[in-house]
Amino acid sequence: MPSDRFADAALIAVDWGTTRCRAMLLDRDGALLAEADSADGIGALGGAGHEEAFETLVASWPKLPAIMAGMVGSRQGWHEAAYVGVPTSPDALAEGLLKFETSDHRPVAIVPGLVLRSEARDGDVIRGEETQLIGLMEEEPDFEGIAILPGTHSKWAAISNGEITTFQTFLTGEMFDLLARKSFLRHSVAENADDIAGSPHFALAVKRTIAEGLPFLGAIFSVRVRQLLDGVSGDDNLAYLSGLVIGGEIAAARQIGLLDADRPIRIIGSRTLARSYHAAFAVAGHPADTRDGSALVRRGLVRLARANGLL
Amino acid sequence: MPSDRFADAALIAVDWGTTRCRAMLLDRDGALLAEADSADGIGALGGAGHEEAFETLVASWPKLPAIMAGMVGSRQGWHEAAYVGVPTSPDALAEGLLKFETSDHRPVAIVPGLVLRSEARDGDVIRGEETQLIGLMEEEPDFEGIAILPGTHSKWAAISNGEITTFQTFLTGEMFDLLARKSFLRHSVAENADDIAGSPHFALAVKRTIAEGLPFLGAIFSVRVRQLLDGVSGDDNLAYLSGLVIGGEIAAARQIGLLDADRPIRIIGSRTLARSYHAAFAVAGHPADTRDGSALVRRGLVRLARANGLL
Repeated sequence: MPSDRFADAALIAVDWGTTRCRAMLLDRDGALLAEADSADGIGALGGAGHEEAFETLVASWPKLPAIMAGMVGSRQGWHEAAYVGVPTSPDALAEGLLKFETSDHRPVAIVPGLVLRSEARDGDVIRGEETQLIGLMEEEPDFEGIAILPGTHSKWAAISNGEITTFQTFLTGEMFDLLARKSFLRHSVAENADDIAGSPHFALAVKRTIAEGLPFLGAIFSVRVRQLLDGVSGDDNLAYLSGLVIGGEIAAARQIGLLDADRPIRIIGSRTLARSYHAAFAVAGHPADTRDGSALVRRGLVRLARANGLL
Repeated sequence: MPSDRFADAALIAVDWGTTRCRAMLLDRDGALLAEADSADGIGALGGAGHEEAFETLVASWPKLPAIMAGMVGSRQGWHEAAYVGVPTSPDALAEGLLKFETSDHRPVAIVPGLVLRSEARDGDVIRGEETQLIGLMEEEPDFEGIAILPGTHSKWAAISNGEITTFQTFLTGEMFDLLARKSFLRHSVAENADDIAGSPHFALAVKRTIAEGLPFLGAIFSVRVRQLLDGVSGDDNLAYLSGLVIGGEIAAARQIGLLDADRPIRIIGSRTLARSYHAAFAVAGHPADTRDGSALVRRGLVRLARANGLL
């Protein structure tokens, strides 16, 4: 019987991004009781119907307070949760939660994104990844170093003294897709390749960009040249291109001071992508540990809900 | 009467690229007597019908030897003209001309492209731009410096002691189009903007990438942030993005040693693009002169035809 199964339920935690809405039913300790997800991402909803999409998704669960992170708090989301500036702490972020009630009086809180204001860089924003950062800080309270969240828009954040001190967005995933699918290089790379992270071509490209200092904009054309002059296969060239883009990101991060030998690195993300970054850091001579992104979202949402009295 | 008008004609010089075929009827001194062009680019022809396309274009001209540069010498061209390695001189390139006769016994010569073989960079190739470089060396026989040919794939070449010593391709034009038209940034930039080269937003982006060392991959996301946080207009943001890409190219060239304070710079290209590069070099503190690209093609073809006895 659902009512018995969910007797310990205390909170609904929601990771609501551009393409998916993922809800988790949690008990008082933050343990997972049930999960539900839908394709009602913020992009698909187009600025309307958030309450209905959410209530439909969790209709079979008890009516509990909900805490949400991701694009749900953007201008196109359910309600806009204003950015909180860095440096910031988990408690400060919890204070910045946007709280409201649904038409059926369910309390909802939306996690704000982070904003960096900088004369030298025109600023930067994060929305969604801040919750994984909070999750990491909960898991490793004494962590001092760099957390990397690879993806379409890869985010690097510096964590020190219990605060997120600064961060930087790189367009890595989108750049890879543009080059591999939409540029003239699409004729020189395969659509997919097995084991990119383990390919010597991936490692060579990382070495070129990180160790040998080949600048990204000057490195890309060589993907075509390798095919033209050396007959390099599409599979090997896809791995090479991936290495150029990820290596280019790491080289750029080092250039702006986000990477130095002393600071430990945590890669937060899906298995495939995390493996590629792990391999790239190995070539670069930086040890890096990986963490599962979805576990950290839950952990971060629980931490923020507790700090705000929702749990 | 055509026969009188063309009494002094001595050579047909052809700039045959991916999208256009442009033929010039020249006298013994290389002066232009007539021009004709068509949309029968090498891309449009798809690997066949080159002779017919050419003979149709020049049917009203006297039957004279022809010299051709560009993609006509590529694998998809009329006949493949093997790359010549750098360093190389105009005379060495003239020796590398691929010569054949049409079915109607018209002598034709195709200019080879250039190839760079480098352990550190996977090599590089040029096809078409070498002829403009030869034209520049003919116009300024004592030139020692860097020639830049902006475009979809921007080419930088070092000229020293009467030789083309090295070169480097940057994906600048294609990168700009991908980011402005196909990436998520397309919502943050206008389709077109007047006077990009004169915009303070262009200058700011160049300053960021060249003077302040902001790495290209870390700079791009700020185009979105400027719109989101500061309400920067699409026009201003298009100029900013253009500045990031061109500034990123110049910064990358400096990083690999292609730019130093002592070497003069020649920008070879169309008016609009040359103006943007000129403005970028002004921000970077490097004086740069511009040259008209089509005049240099003709000059280069005449130089190579003379060296090979075609004129």
